[in-house]
Amino acid sequence: MAKAPVLTPQADDFPRWYQDLINKAELADNGPVRGTMVIRPYGYSLWERMQQELDARIKEAGASNAYFPLFIPQSYLTREAEHVEGFSPELAVVTHGGGKELEEPVVVRPTSETIINEYFSKWVQSYRDLPLLINQWANVVRWEMRPRVFLRTTEFLWQEGHTAHATYEDARDYAARILHEVYADFMVEVLGISVVLGRKTGRERFAGAINTLALEGMMRDGKALQMGTSHELGQNFARAFNTQYLSKDGRQELVWQTSWGVSTRMVGGLIMSHGDDNGLRVPPRLAPVQAVVMAIKGDDAVIAKVREIGDRLKAAGVRVVVDDRTDTPFGRRAVDWELKGVPVRVEIGPRDLEGGTAMLARRIPGGKEPVPVDGIAELVTAALEEDQAQLLRESRERREANTADVSTIGEALEASSSGWARIPWADLGPEGEAKLAEEAVTVRCLVAPDGSVPDSEDASGTLAVVGRAY
Amino acid sequence: MAKAPVLTPQADDFPRWYQDLINKAELADNGPVRGTMVIRPYGYSLWERMQQELDARIKEAGASNAYFPLFIPQSYLTREAEHVEGFSPELAVVTHGGGKELEEPVVVRPTSETIINEYFSKWVQSYRDLPLLINQWANVVRWEMRPRVFLRTTEFLWQEGHTAHATYEDARDYAARILHEVYADFMVEVLGISVVLGRKTGRERFAGAINTLALEGMMRDGKALQMGTSHELGQNFARAFNTQYLSKDGRQELVWQTSWGVSTRMVGGLIMSHGDDNGLRVPPRLAPVQAVVMAIKGDDAVIAKVREIGDRLKAAGVRVVVDDRTDTPFGRRAVDWELKGVPVRVEIGPRDLEGGTAMLARRIPGGKEPVPVDGIAELVTAALEEDQAQLLRESRERREANTADVSTIGEALEASSSGWARIPWADLGPEGEAKLAEEAVTVRCLVAPDGSVPDSEDASGTLAVVGRAY
Ligand SMILES: [Zn+2]
Ligand SMILES: [Zn+2]
Repeated sequence: MAKAPVLTPQADDFPRWYQDLINKAELADNGPVRGTMVIRPYGYSLWERMQQELDARIKEAGASNAYFPLFIPQSYLTREAEHVEGFSPELAVVTHGGGKELEEPVVVRPTSETIINEYFSKWVQSYRDLPLLINQWANVVRWEMRPRVFLRTTEFLWQEGHTAHATYEDARDYAARILHEVYADFMVEVLGISVVLGRKTGRERFAGAINTLALEGMMRDGKALQMGTSHELGQNFARAFNTQYLSKDGRQELVWQTSWGVSTRMVGGLIMSHGDDNGLRVPPRLAPVQAVVMAIKGDDAVIAKVREIGDRLKAAGVRVVVDDRTDTPFGRRAVDWELKGVPVRVEIGPRDLEGGTAMLARRIPGGKEPVPVDGIAELVTAALEEDQAQLLRESRERREANTADVSTIGEALEASSSGWARIPWADLGPEGEAKLAEEAVTVRCLVAPDGSVPDSEDASGTLAVVGRAY
Repeated sequence: MAKAPVLTPQADDFPRWYQDLINKAELADNGPVRGTMVIRPYGYSLWERMQQELDARIKEAGASNAYFPLFIPQSYLTREAEHVEGFSPELAVVTHGGGKELEEPVVVRPTSETIINEYFSKWVQSYRDLPLLINQWANVVRWEMRPRVFLRTTEFLWQEGHTAHATYEDARDYAARILHEVYADFMVEVLGISVVLGRKTGRERFAGAINTLALEGMMRDGKALQMGTSHELGQNFARAFNTQYLSKDGRQELVWQTSWGVSTRMVGGLIMSHGDDNGLRVPPRLAPVQAVVMAIKGDDAVIAKVREIGDRLKAAGVRVVVDDRTDTPFGRRAVDWELKGVPVRVEIGPRDLEGGTAMLARRIPGGKEPVPVDGIAELVTAALEEDQAQLLRESRERREANTADVSTIGEALEASSSGWARIPWADLGPEGEAKLAEEAVTVRCLVAPDGSVPDSEDASGTLAVVGRAY
């Protein structure tokens, strides 16, 4: 008799598989207020690693971290017309503070363009103050009608970058730099997700932006997840908040701005990109635990050996955990590490000691085999490199295999039932986009024929990548 | 004619000096909603370094990071009677979300004991799940009537640890471990503040705790700042949330708990402990910038030399910035680095190149002298070590010199006008404490005669450390 699966199989019910995995791998729980979430320690350790990798890249791109208040006067939101229209339905409003009704209600930030511009308008005086490159790590709140853990939550964690530049070109180039050097580099090289980079259509653009660049990942069910966005804000917020600088030739000019963000939603993207019916599979460069060294039994010599191997792997730069909790059955522990997606397990029992061997179990390609303990650090290091490459290759191949080049709306809809379609934007246009939207299919982004990001949606040969999305 | 001071001198008006420094060193601004603050990049870089140092110690103490929601159902707060009484006057309440009035208003977390216990009661089943050691880095909101940047703000950033243990002794020991190994070690060794460790009186205890341990620092005006607290919660929240475990002998038992936190208030403590009339002085182990290498003039050879020295200091492990912004006058840049409290400045001008020398300016002892460029890395490294020791020594000596041993309430009040008093707790007692409170003098903590933390307030010889406080 085959044992009952730990998770609902993906093929049976993908959304239920996703929720099962989050519960069983102890990644997160639902919060008590509808749409909020509790990020449990293992789930949070994935987010912490994402933060570390992104923060280093953001600093490399010249931005400094700062912190702006959670509470924004309601009046700020209304200053940029499209912005308030976009966010009003999602706001949480504080009406009472310190036991009294507030004179002006305050909103809990859904994003910080407005409050940050209020300060940029004070801090920026002359062209010498530009570019001003700021990032913040923060929680934001957008009231969600159809919440789903990590993917759409009323409160989520993110970074939001906000910059001010002297010229249109400088702002445009910086938005693109963040897209490529920070986000795409991180998602491809660390998360192992073969994202598509493109620009959003007018319909999908951020409320208040003149251009939105996006990174879209294909999940294992063929749906798209927007993994991150980088916006050119033009002078919209600068006008609303009067953010001006004195130019070299002595004139007051409005600044040009960008904003860009990625969030805990990426944890959902990680799960749905790499997870399988046995649980999560974490790419080694991200993994908070790259290898676990397990004692099969509570024998003193075995315990000593797993600790020794743990030390050797640690010395080789591997993020390692020694699992010597032998009062819990080995099988249960092994299933748990598999659910958590730890790439490599080194298993040691009494019989291994004599032969100087260990079992090396690989979560990502699967399978296990006995290996000599002597060369274990080299074997594990090599396995981690292979695993990283394999996940990215799988992600790219899955996306390519499930993206169809089509020329009609009917074909685009058909392809969207199991993957994505690419269709000439000149053929689709805003009218075609509206028709697709009736069937819950959206233009994820516009790309150039060579796969690069087009300079404008009118650029010749521009393709629309369409699909269903989370 | 003496030049006008950049800051109001401390001796003239200490609170104004504090606010001047925060403005001029670009640490923070007031937020638009009363009591909130904007933490500017340099101020935030101090906080980031605090986070890094603390986070490593918290993980060393076995705790894992997680994240709990910002929004707490109002009903949770009311479950622990003292807790709700303590926090009710300070709550911010969200009444509207997603365009509708909420059925149950939610409060913005003032602290997370209640919501965390809701989850601990689900996660903890058996003694095998204990101890459960959780920390979170988060923002919290407590509506402030008399706000002051960093010290008392309506929103602040902090870490809050929350743990559950099988026994009273284990919880008690862990609260003490955090006090000593995490907080005191960080504050003394990194912040260079000679904090006093002790226990709070019943009057000063955290709302819902059975014992509060605290670290108190003496500021340069003789007032106290509570730098951090570690609480034994007993079984108060366990009872309120029914947080139970199955013991080894098969009985359901309530857990014993701790909670502990430090916040952005420490940035205020740093400023008021080490700052002087020329600005901040940042202890080297904390400093985001330990040394700045300044080009006095925009000469090509000078620029090349400061970059070379910057590289050498970086290679020696120094956190260094190269300041080659020679379009800004040298004097203005030097004053700015002095305001920001960077411990060491290496200044290079055209004349230094020939002699192979540089000016080495020291922020902490003060003064500058020419030094050979050849041995610069060793000189800077040695200077940083001296500076770290000097700040701690100054802090300890100031506290000792300004703490009087007294035996009457009158003497205690007199000593509190410029520093602290130590008075036998058996002589003072809750009645004496109430009398002091009428004059805004409080018992900062109770200490044993040998300076250690007393096991109870009744322990023989226990001394009360009293003073005015921020
Ligand atoms: Zn607009
Ligand atoms: Zn109580």
